[in-house]
Amino acid sequence: MRDNESVIEGRNAVIEAFRSGRCIDRLFIKDGLNDGQIQTIKREAKKKDLRIEFVARERLDQMSVTGAHQGVIAYIAAYEYSELEDIFSIAEKKGEDPFIFILDNIEDPHNLGAIIRTANMAGAHGVIIPKNRAVGLTATVAKVSAGALNYTPVVRVTNISRTIEELKERGVWAVCADMDGTVMYDLDLKGSIAVVIGAEGSGVSRLVREKCDMIASIPVKGDIDSLNASVAAGILAYEVVRQRRV
Amino acid sequence: MRDNESVIEGRNAVIEAFRSGRCIDRLFIKDGLNDGQIQTIKREAKKKDLRIEFVARERLDQMSVTGAHQGVIAYIAAYEYSELEDIFSIAEKKGEDPFIFILDNIEDPHNLGAIIRTANMAGAHGVIIPKNRAVGLTATVAKVSAGALNYTPVVRVTNISRTIEELKERGVWAVCADMDGTVMYDLDLKGSIAVVIGAEGSGVSRLVREKCDMIASIPVKGDIDSLNASVAAGILAYEVVRQRRV
Repeated sequence: MRDNESVIEGRNAVIEAFRSGRCIDRLFIKDGLNDGQIQTIKREAKKKDLRIEFVARERLDQMSVTGAHQGVIAYIAAYEYSELEDIFSIAEKKGEDPFIFILDNIEDPHNLGAIIRTANMAGAHGVIIPKNRAVGLTATVAKVSAGALNYTPVVRVTNISRTIEELKERGVWAVCADMDGTVMYDLDLKGSIAVVIGAEGSGVSRLVREKCDMIASIPVKGDIDSLNASVAAGILAYEVVRQRRV
Repeated sequence: MRDNESVIEGRNAVIEAFRSGRCIDRLFIKDGLNDGQIQTIKREAKKKDLRIEFVARERLDQMSVTGAHQGVIAYIAAYEYSELEDIFSIAEKKGEDPFIFILDNIEDPHNLGAIIRTANMAGAHGVIIPKNRAVGLTATVAKVSAGALNYTPVVRVTNISRTIEELKERGVWAVCADMDGTVMYDLDLKGSIAVVIGAEGSGVSRLVREKCDMIASIPVKGDIDSLNASVAAGILAYEVVRQRRV
């Protein structure tokens, strides 16, 4: 699931990446390490509000491409992240009500890339993803997005629930996709809206769902009861497109 | 893109697979071979209406898992195919107008699996795929379908255009997804319908498009102009679900 070209291994390489301002998506350090260089790395991570994932040596060995990770592996973003303000200013420039995608812990880079592609095609003004425990803008994501990453801003936030509250204060309603909700065709999805899509398997987390103004369900007409996350995102987003068009 | 467990290599193994009635999806033979065993394999393929793909030795070496292909490699289906009649009888049993997915040369097993999953969830009665030049029911497709392959029949046909004509004679209208069509919200997609989805990249082929009764476009509101095939299938299928519901 990872792209070799966006992996940085070894202490000096990771410290250098922090200092040159590269955007690190995820940082893994071997459990129990705490020497001078590791402390430097921890300080840099703290400055960037980046959560460190402490893991066993075996896990790092598995992730390592060079075989010389020295207990530290970082994944850097292939693309730059934007700010929440960018999304609002794009909507304003187009004279449209903000239309935002919020992704709650999408871990598969193919799903993330396909969703960014759908967001662009559906005319959404930006995509919000969480800083931790989710895939970032790797080269695979960029490729699968089919160019959409060049147009659609992706914003990384520390806390999705808090961001939903912030959006509410600015007049944006949040609707999350969940099987227990109201059938999406019966909801009013016009106006400023954020569509919240959960992780494949676990769905939208409870805390995030509680913050949402509406819960939309995609009707189940068959035997199985869940869709691929990027397909679900496309179906719900185009119901928004249809209602905005009326 | 291939599953090791569904690859059969070597002359005897392939002849054996044919004779035991296993369903072979694709058959590759090294260019220029024509001895007795190869002739047997060709005869068996002809009986099954299976197109042989003649390729260079290098291609076979690349595909080979065992390294002992002897100039012949076959891919077998992980799941059984159904007959067109099965789709109609499922619709009849449910008391519904037939709702069918037709896939014009989907080559990516992840897309095929995701589309079968969507077809089941949307309440379609079956999926039709072409016999040649497309991915079949491999183990990856089964896994990505998330169980849908246990419920939704998949039918393999020799010629998609001819099948569309056959469906028309039985009162099923074909609508294909294409950017040049009428916006899908403005089409009447109620009644007996087959949704035709083209290959990622090239889209629905000209011959197939000409056979369709309607061409539906998913509106483009952004900068890029195409969606992942499984996302497009989901969006168009759920417009059918919405209209059927009214």
